[in-house]
Amino acid sequence: MLQGYTLPQTPTGRSSLAPRPPWHYAGDCLAVEFEASPQAVRALLPSALEFESEHCCAYFIEWQFATDDGDEPLEPATSQYKESIFLISGLFRGEKVAFCPFIWVDQDVSLMRGLIQGWPKQFGSIWVTHAYAVAGKAASRHAPGGSFGASLTVKDRRLVDALVTLREPSPSLPWPSFAKAVNLRLFPNLARGLHDKPALFELVRLKSRDVQVGPILKGEATLYFHDHPRLELPLLKPVTIGAGYRFSFALTVDDLETLMDLRE
Amino acid sequence: MLQGYTLPQTPTGRSSLAPRPPWHYAGDCLAVEFEASPQAVRALLPSALEFESEHCCAYFIEWQFATDDGDEPLEPATSQYKESIFLISGLFRGEKVAFCPFIWVDQDVSLMRGLIQGWPKQFGSIWVTHAYAVAGKAASRHAPGGSFGASLTVKDRRLVDALVTLREPSPSLPWPSFAKAVNLRLFPNLARGLHDKPALFELVRLKSRDVQVGPILKGEATLYFHDHPRLELPLLKPVTIGAGYRFSFALTVDDLETLMDLRE
Amino acid sequence: MLQGYTLPQTPTGRSSLAPRPPWHYAGDCLAVEFEASPQAVRALLPSALEFESEHCCAYFIEWQFATDDGDEPLEPATSQYKESIFLISGLFRGEKVAFCPFIWVDQDVSLMRGLIQGWPKQFGSIWVTHAYAVAGKAASRHAPGGSFGASLTVKDRRLVDALVTLREPSPSLPWPSFAKAVNLRLFPNLARGLHDKPALFELVRLKSRDVQVGPILKGEATLYFHDHPRLELPLLKPVTIGAGYRFSFALTVDDLETLMDLRE
Amino acid sequence: MLQGYTLPQTPTGRSSLAPRPPWHYAGDCLAVEFEASPQAVRALLPSALEFESEHCCAYFIEWQFATDDGDEPLEPATSQYKESIFLISGLFRGEKVAFCPFIWVDQDVSLMRGLIQGWPKQFGSIWVTHAYAVAGKAASRHAPGGSFGASLTVKDRRLVDALVTLREPSPSLPWPSFAKAVNLRLFPNLARGLHDKPALFELVRLKSRDVQVGPILKGEATLYFHDHPRLELPLLKPVTIGAGYRFSFALTVDDLETLMDLRE
Repeated sequence: MLQGYTLPQTPTGRSSLAPRPPWHYAGDCLAVEFEASPQAVRALLPSALEFESEHCCAYFIEWQFATDDGDEPLEPATSQYKESIFLISGLFRGEKVAFCPFIWVDQDVSLMRGLIQGWPKQFGSIWVTHAYAVAGKAASRHAPGGSFGASLTVKDRRLVDALVTLREPSPSLPWPSFAKAVNLRLFPNLARGLHDKPALFELVRLKSRDVQVGPILKGEATLYFHDHPRLELPLLKPVTIGAGYRFSFALTVDDLETLMDLRE
Repeated sequence: MLQGYTLPQTPTGRSSLAPRPPWHYAGDCLAVEFEASPQAVRALLPSALEFESEHCCAYFIEWQFATDDGDEPLEPATSQYKESIFLISGLFRGEKVAFCPFIWVDQDVSLMRGLIQGWPKQFGSIWVTHAYAVAGKAASRHAPGGSFGASLTVKDRRLVDALVTLREPSPSLPWPSFAKAVNLRLFPNLARGLHDKPALFELVRLKSRDVQVGPILKGEATLYFHDHPRLELPLLKPVTIGAGYRFSFALTVDDLETLMDLRE
Repeated sequence: MLQGYTLPQTPTGRSSLAPRPPWHYAGDCLAVEFEASPQAVRALLPSALEFESEHCCAYFIEWQFATDDGDEPLEPATSQYKESIFLISGLFRGEKVAFCPFIWVDQDVSLMRGLIQGWPKQFGSIWVTHAYAVAGKAASRHAPGGSFGASLTVKDRRLVDALVTLREPSPSLPWPSFAKAVNLRLFPNLARGLHDKPALFELVRLKSRDVQVGPILKGEATLYFHDHPRLELPLLKPVTIGAGYRFSFALTVDDLETLMDLRE
Repeated sequence: MLQGYTLPQTPTGRSSLAPRPPWHYAGDCLAVEFEASPQAVRALLPSALEFESEHCCAYFIEWQFATDDGDEPLEPATSQYKESIFLISGLFRGEKVAFCPFIWVDQDVSLMRGLIQGWPKQFGSIWVTHAYAVAGKAASRHAPGGSFGASLTVKDRRLVDALVTLREPSPSLPWPSFAKAVNLRLFPNLARGLHDKPALFELVRLKSRDVQVGPILKGEATLYFHDHPRLELPLLKPVTIGAGYRFSFALTVDDLETLMDLRE
């Protein structure tokens, strides 16, 4: 009897690309709030969501992952990955939500866990300046005055450059926030005639628990989206750039709420 | 109105990780037939398939991909990838079929197209000796006497080493063959209580068309599976090693046949 | 007694990053001839060379490497690499030579062998369309009508895009040709006060033997250099683009001629 | 007039692979002290050094780099890299020194700076568990009880696994320490007949300044060297494993002391 939360399935289930939930995460996060053109935000919202505002946020995160056994962080070749998330604002039944039109990650296990949650993950190369516990020209500090850069490159073309200089503590996280994201879960059919009729297509709301957030610092930021011959992130080019943030956080995922079945 | 065969969806559909079929492929393939333990083959077959024999085959392929527009091969950073496929034999309703317990690839788009077809793709680092149109100590030839190596490494651990020395033309392709594979399409649920009840779980049969095969050469081979702390490919360690093969081929995919719904 | 042609040295010498010569190479090569601004060519020539013409050539090569033992191609994870070479024209004591202002490669062993020959190698991500022995939308052919793309990306920023459509056989290789290159061998000092006084600085001429060239095809080409915040290849932006070429070749290197000691 | 501390040289010198010193570094370091066989240590010492003891140390470091301008950390795709260093003990003219038989890094600029200092750098894939400012199953802490793993893989084969569990503050750094390393600077000749007569071969002593060290924590460790078909690090397989350490540090390099010319 084959077992496995995802493919591949084996008698033990151990080979499954994504392990069974719960999934525990810890991340160092650099974020930049920005406003995009309202038309672009409207155009990228699914029809089940209404326009709320032009507020967007770009995140660059260095993650570590663990299951309940918790040994994965000791094999960092398997449990570390980097991610770049872009969120826009929307309204679902009158409630403010975040929606993710684009996200890039650099690891297969994270891509699979992401698809299951409706994150539209693709592969990219993400880099974020590290903070160190010492001072020096090469050592950025998680402290007022500390400067951090981040970049996203997809299929060998630079797509995004970001820069944040921390100035002061912040009582709140940036908005839109991925903790409250509403996503699309989509798995297509390949049988001829069914290419437009997905096997699975639903609006879902993320659920996370045991969220912890470390000290949040905030400051000024720059954010630049490069033109790209195919990728459409530049639709969201910043019109106004807001605050930059840096913080660490941890959370656990083992649940998801389905809001609507979107198949006709 | 958002469009896209897969996520991410946008107004144009251009950003979709996997483009709409048809999908055109060309590949240079190194293959090694082998026999695994019958118990291992039985253990890795889904319950809808019966044991046929201990015949297995390992493939190492350098692919190029195109849609109908056909321009992708001119952007090889986007359209090239490498893949390592392991096939076992099975019977479905009395007919000999191939089943894929394990497959590794090095590109996100291929991973997504693979999941849609039921290939249990994960990421790996695959290398295959190249053939050249000249002679020399560094230049392997697609000709009798030509030697080719291949390796698969997953999460920074070597998993497979293969070696083929070509001796003579072959009238036939190796068996089991991925053209006739029966796969599992599986997409899990994350809602609490549903982790064991996938949203989609079906037995499917691959369909390909416009298959072309170049000159097939055959010879002797070695194949070695390294132990691994987590991955279960070593269950299929070769008991007997058969012939090695090298050939080029092309095919198109835009259809799939569902054989059984496997949800209870 | 430690041995090794390069570091690291060990009792056996086996661990040396670059093995002892001779070095045997085989490559599939895509090339585009172009003319740059004469001022840029003059500015990039070392003072020991005079200006000859604005003729330049860009090469994109998929290499395989072997020593005399010749087993390296069977471990392609070790012996394969890709390279992008840019050559300009010069005169040395009245003789036409090629000079390499910029070259990128994706492997450490090749970088080390290159530095020893005076190639100014840095790391880049290089992709080149593959030719296949079959036809199809995804299968480029080494034949009239075959189209091939190539790209170079350095530190996550696209630097070069090239495109060649083959039209006809060519009796000759592109010019300038790396077989006749004159290079600078440079190894700096780090002791304070000596940063401008290299330990080694000489003008050298490459020597290769046992050169073999397969069928050369030629056609039209495009070549584009992207702007870059730091790298200076864009100085050589094509003013006129000449022919594109594709061919396979093999050669052996185990000698070098020193032309001048350039230390004051 | 071409300029550049290393190749490639250009009119501005900006393209030089390694920039002119000073070089500023910051690093997060995981280290494991161990004892190797005295015969192995003797065999790997250059003849200018005498045997001191079988004490060795393995380091795994995540670096960030800056020049005097100091902007490099804001472009982490260029300034971040990871490194795995193995040091053995020796005596030079009666003084205890460290000597580096093997070191792996994942970036070209670091490899070049390393060769200039006599570090025998090669390319490898290095991973080290991250510490986070929050708690959780996925979040290791730089605190007593915190566990950290590290791995080194070279040319797609796992070479080293390490594991450290922190227990208490340590007043001292591990030994041997790379700050006091004695290295070999070696640059070979390629001219026929001179393959055994390097252009440059000298014993050097590293110099660093402005060294800062953050809180040092210490605990128990495991360290495992995998067999490898070519690489000789396994000569130094741990006989006894000592303490594990974790700390951050920063330093500046712009000088080097030549101890002996080793050319005959």
